[in-house]
Amino acid sequence: MTYGIIGTGAVGGYYGGMLAKAGKEVHFLFHRDYEFVRNNGLQVNSCNGNFHLHPVLAYSATDQMPQCDVVLVALKTVNEKILRDLLPPLLHERTLVVLIQNGIGVEEDVQEWFPGVSLAAGLAFICSAKTEPGVVEHQCYGSINIGNYSCPDETVIATLLSDLTEAGVEARSVEYQEARWRKAVWNMPFNGLTVSLNTQTNKLLENPYTEQLVREMMMEIVRTSRALGIEHIDELFVEKMIQMTRAMVPYSPSMKLDYDFHRPMELYYIYERPLRIAREAGTPMSCLETLHAHLQFLQAHSL
Amino acid sequence: MTYGIIGTGAVGGYYGGMLAKAGKEVHFLFHRDYEFVRNNGLQVNSCNGNFHLHPVLAYSATDQMPQCDVVLVALKTVNEKILRDLLPPLLHERTLVVLIQNGIGVEEDVQEWFPGVSLAAGLAFICSAKTEPGVVEHQCYGSINIGNYSCPDETVIATLLSDLTEAGVEARSVEYQEARWRKAVWNMPFNGLTVSLNTQTNKLLENPYTEQLVREMMMEIVRTSRALGIEHIDELFVEKMIQMTRAMVPYSPSMKLDYDFHRPMELYYIYERPLRIAREAGTPMSCLETLHAHLQFLQAHSL
Repeated sequence: MTYGIIGTGAVGGYYGGMLAKAGKEVHFLFHRDYEFVRNNGLQVNSCNGNFHLHPVLAYSATDQMPQCDVVLVALKTVNEKILRDLLPPLLHERTLVVLIQNGIGVEEDVQEWFPGVSLAAGLAFICSAKTEPGVVEHQCYGSINIGNYSCPDETVIATLLSDLTEAGVEARSVEYQEARWRKAVWNMPFNGLTVSLNTQTNKLLENPYTEQLVREMMMEIVRTSRALGIEHIDELFVEKMIQMTRAMVPYSPSMKLDYDFHRPMELYYIYERPLRIAREAGTPMSCLETLHAHLQFLQAHSL
Repeated sequence: MTYGIIGTGAVGGYYGGMLAKAGKEVHFLFHRDYEFVRNNGLQVNSCNGNFHLHPVLAYSATDQMPQCDVVLVALKTVNEKILRDLLPPLLHERTLVVLIQNGIGVEEDVQEWFPGVSLAAGLAFICSAKTEPGVVEHQCYGSINIGNYSCPDETVIATLLSDLTEAGVEARSVEYQEARWRKAVWNMPFNGLTVSLNTQTNKLLENPYTEQLVREMMMEIVRTSRALGIEHIDELFVEKMIQMTRAMVPYSPSMKLDYDFHRPMELYYIYERPLRIAREAGTPMSCLETLHAHLQFLQAHSL
């Protein structure tokens, strides 16, 4: 299978880089880094060993890219509609588009724009950052869960999983909706609270008041997921997420980095959309609504 | 009637100063400003006209003060237990103690410490600040509502009201519990949100997300007050508070000033106590709980 990477940053650069290193044909879309990577290649500094790719199949526009069997989309969702223009050149009849993006609702929207296309969610559990042009810093973790949204051919998903596994990436298939909401359990409290309180994950869990608030926010998502008929997201999972986060190094989630660097935050898919779904399901998430209002205010006074 | 002022700051200095200017016998307790006021008097710069009091019946400790018929307590509640030591020298058998303090629960606690004493709540609607030693800046408003908590002799309350009125202070009698919760409708959203978002009242109402959040927090208090059997605090009152605040000059509530100057915030009586009452009444106030956790975190990292 051939691969296209839309958004070669901390996440797309890592997974695409791992696939390319394993010998797969990977076409990378770059934005600001295009010239640099064309000349110097792509460097991945990984906790599992550094590597350098050169030459790289690098592009600065998708209309110069070939059709691909799998497209990994690792763009921020702040300008999601841009996919309407970016995606078409890469799509053949059975292309699988994997949205490695944060939040709830991206698949629904992209499917509406491309009714026939095969979609999957990619849920990345990775700490990585792009610190300078053409360099991906991969600090830890790195697994990816794939949730089939609308791909009728399970063998495409299976091949993707085996390609990733061969490339040294821990990858597995998960139930789409459950996986998206499971990820929200972590994303919704920690992304926003590190912004609204200008802090890191560990500090939130050291303070008894914010630790309890994190737990209560997570339980709001548990209640919503139950109302949506999703099973297996329960109080035990909440405690597991808190323990897991406690064991992590002090961490600034992507939204905190976005805010600190005066970039727009992914408020729509990480907050607005799931908050609306929760209200419509009859399980309004008041703590998270409060956090969201804080974030909207901070964003309005930051950009 | 003779008066004692415990806590001669922005609030105690104004009401005590007005009473003294009108010729009442007013004994003032000072802390840091004692020497200055002893030598230079008390200056009140008021939107209704400046005035200067000299000499002032100033004291640096309550055990040097005489018993008084009415004691106005205008201390911050951050160290409320100090009243156990401060009050006794001023009390005779029928002394009325008026707690001009923020929050919910102060009368209950002080009554527990002094079971026999007559208590009232003083709800001040005033914008004032103490900017330098012996100087009170009174910017606007200035009315005070008195809610009888445990004074068996209504004539004492009536005399207090007429003394205040004579002194040029708009004063009226209100139902105790309703008045405390009415004040909470304004205090709980605006004190905390100006701190958590480092802003002023007007900015909160200009942003549609935080305006809606203010309204939702106020409605949480409306629902709790209903559960407590308090009437007349409703959605109309909420809208009135929002309109009133919109008409005010950009304002930093007292908690914002406390936080900015690295003083402890009045979190216990303004948040913890009413939040607990709400939970016990079966109407948890989740938006305000979220705000309170923010404030606890900020305070822990500020002092």
